[in-house]
Amino acid sequence: MMIEKVRQKNPLVHNITNMVVTNFTANGLLALGASPVMAYAHEEVADMAKIADALVLNMGTLTEEVVEAMIIAGKSANEHGVPVVFDPVGVGATPYRTESARRILQHVNLSVLRGNAAEVAHLVGEEWAIKGVDAGEGTGDVQKLAQKAALDLSCVVVITGKEDITTDGDIIYRGLNGDVALTKVTGTGCLLSSVIGAFLGTGAASIEAAKEAATFYGVAAELAAEKTKDQGPGSFQVEFLNQLALVSSEQIELRKSIYMMN
Amino acid sequence: MMIEKVRQKNPLVHNITNMVVTNFTANGLLALGASPVMAYAHEEVADMAKIADALVLNMGTLTEEVVEAMIIAGKSANEHGVPVVFDPVGVGATPYRTESARRILQHVNLSVLRGNAAEVAHLVGEEWAIKGVDAGEGTGDVQKLAQKAALDLSCVVVITGKEDITTDGDIIYRGLNGDVALTKVTGTGCLLSSVIGAFLGTGAASIEAAKEAATFYGVAAELAAEKTKDQGPGSFQVEFLNQLALVSSEQIELRKSIYMMN
Amino acid sequence: MMIEKVRQKNPLVHNITNMVVTNFTANGLLALGASPVMAYAHEEVADMAKIADALVLNMGTLTEEVVEAMIIAGKSANEHGVPVVFDPVGVGATPYRTESARRILQHVNLSVLRGNAAEVAHLVGEEWAIKGVDAGEGTGDVQKLAQKAALDLSCVVVITGKEDITTDGDIIYRGLNGDVALTKVTGTGCLLSSVIGAFLGTGAASIEAAKEAATFYGVAAELAAEKTKDQGPGSFQVEFLNQLALVSSEQIELRKSIYMMN
Repeated sequence: MMIEKVRQKNPLVHNITNMVVTNFTANGLLALGASPVMAYAHEEVADMAKIADALVLNMGTLTEEVVEAMIIAGKSANEHGVPVVFDPVGVGATPYRTESARRILQHVNLSVLRGNAAEVAHLVGEEWAIKGVDAGEGTGDVQKLAQKAALDLSCVVVITGKEDITTDGDIIYRGLNGDVALTKVTGTGCLLSSVIGAFLGTGAASIEAAKEAATFYGVAAELAAEKTKDQGPGSFQVEFLNQLALVSSEQIELRKSIYMMN
Repeated sequence: MMIEKVRQKNPLVHNITNMVVTNFTANGLLALGASPVMAYAHEEVADMAKIADALVLNMGTLTEEVVEAMIIAGKSANEHGVPVVFDPVGVGATPYRTESARRILQHVNLSVLRGNAAEVAHLVGEEWAIKGVDAGEGTGDVQKLAQKAALDLSCVVVITGKEDITTDGDIIYRGLNGDVALTKVTGTGCLLSSVIGAFLGTGAASIEAAKEAATFYGVAAELAAEKTKDQGPGSFQVEFLNQLALVSSEQIELRKSIYMMN
Repeated sequence: MMIEKVRQKNPLVHNITNMVVTNFTANGLLALGASPVMAYAHEEVADMAKIADALVLNMGTLTEEVVEAMIIAGKSANEHGVPVVFDPVGVGATPYRTESARRILQHVNLSVLRGNAAEVAHLVGEEWAIKGVDAGEGTGDVQKLAQKAALDLSCVVVITGKEDITTDGDIIYRGLNGDVALTKVTGTGCLLSSVIGAFLGTGAASIEAAKEAATFYGVAAELAAEKTKDQGPGSFQVEFLNQLALVSSEQIELRKSIYMMN
């Protein structure tokens, strides 16, 4: 299982992420065995990105300074062969977010895009409902949307929700692991984007890394939800960090629920 | 009970808050059933505030950029009828904080002001001791202070401490729910301000929303403190997030300790 | 034990720290009995630093604005006799970090420098491996390194790792308390720097404060690790906050493992 390679290699994951989730992201990455670094200054992001094993760009709390930092870091990652994950948090909620996301995509080539259906739809110009930074109740065909996005952006696309769809535009995986408790803790989508970064940091192919990361993450959530049933989101969050550290290859093998759709 | 309306409506609460408490605020709002969004960029705060059900401005870690963002967002909220909560963290601790708070008040009309006695006193030019961002040991008449502030600022004022005073300048509520364990977790005052925002987001009158939010919050704290007695502030914080999700109308009815003083 | 003085005095610790660890730092300081304040604006940092009992500067997520704020606050602290702790997170990982750290040291006199061996080595121009913001596997003589740094920078130096070395350039303490679980939670080094600030805030001599803080911290970690054995880093973090509040002088006396090396 790829999680073992992550735990052996401790890939350095450079995150330019939002101020809501920095702590949770760092703790999640540490728990599963990766080495997180957060760096934002224009003066150093290119240097940090090029020594990283993966770069994760997350738009949660955008400012001009952060957008610039993401573009500088993204270009450096592209030049040095460092895989880039992009999480367009809340794109579509305001015109500024949509513009900023498009600016980033103009300058940076992605290995993986991860978002909910509404975010991905907005990025590729499809109609979808959105409310704040959470997914709206859009009812489009998620698989088709993911494929379109993958082809338009020439990268692997992961759309998360009740089901997770992972595709490179050709192969489509449908993943069913996960738990609704994830929706009651802030930054669980953001952390998944960073976990995909950690899996990419092992050198695996983008589609394999993305699919394996989502499955690992979903299994950890299931185990945490079972251990903290009816206790509430505080306890779930703590146990989820535990499970990111504890989940074994055997548990993933036993519980994984992922299907190739074509 | 108003908490049920919050859980049904999932009001979108736009927070411009300090970097110490963003994660805890988002998790607290999610736990109780609201939809948090944090957005700071001048380019988008007006757009975000106008689609929100409430806007919460918290001065914890001020910079010029943040003050500007608060004023832009606050004006947009005022124009679109979105209620605004203001939490003047640490006002009086430095001249800059006092000035900034006054600037915000010049431009933004509040629905609710929430602070400790020292902060509220400073805002309305009364003498009170303050140390850092925590309340000093001032011994003024808190009810009178709250009334004066409510009349001066034409809004509902909530002063929290051993007792919570909520007033619109006329009616005064004295609330006794809560637990001292709240003082050992950072951002519990800040989160209450955002919880008031969530309650306002149901469309309730400001004084009702403020009073109900403070009571709900105090009951959740009591239950969490009972469940984690002698365990320490780490366990209390986790259980408090649990209780924000779990507290029922029946439990609030049973435990509420709030009195109209006039 | 000095922890009792901290709990009696509740020293105000002004932190200019990174956005990953602000919440954890504030909660850790509150747990042990100190009064944390975070303030960053150029307009107020001098005012805040001068009323604080200690100032802690942490470079984790540098920007030009933050470096300037650190220098302004540091100068103010120096002028007003407020002790300064510096935590040069990730120095050496990028040229910008190294430059910024040196700029800060040119303008601010330190009471205590705390870092891992790689960071301290970089600051004083010694060769050491570094990866991201975590310590590399350098194998130099840590005691010699600490002594050189203490003499070069005219301050107490604490190098943490499997062992903690504390020295003023003359006396050297070797501390063995602590637990490997600390390496699986982000910001445990940063929080120790702030805890040293809290201990300095009692008015104790720098070397005593630093040594006592590191021992207290290590004992709290050991107790937390024992209580959460095999549960994972989420549970450890919660229990560690508990133990910062609960550890007694008797427990420290019983468990302390610290030796004067000369």
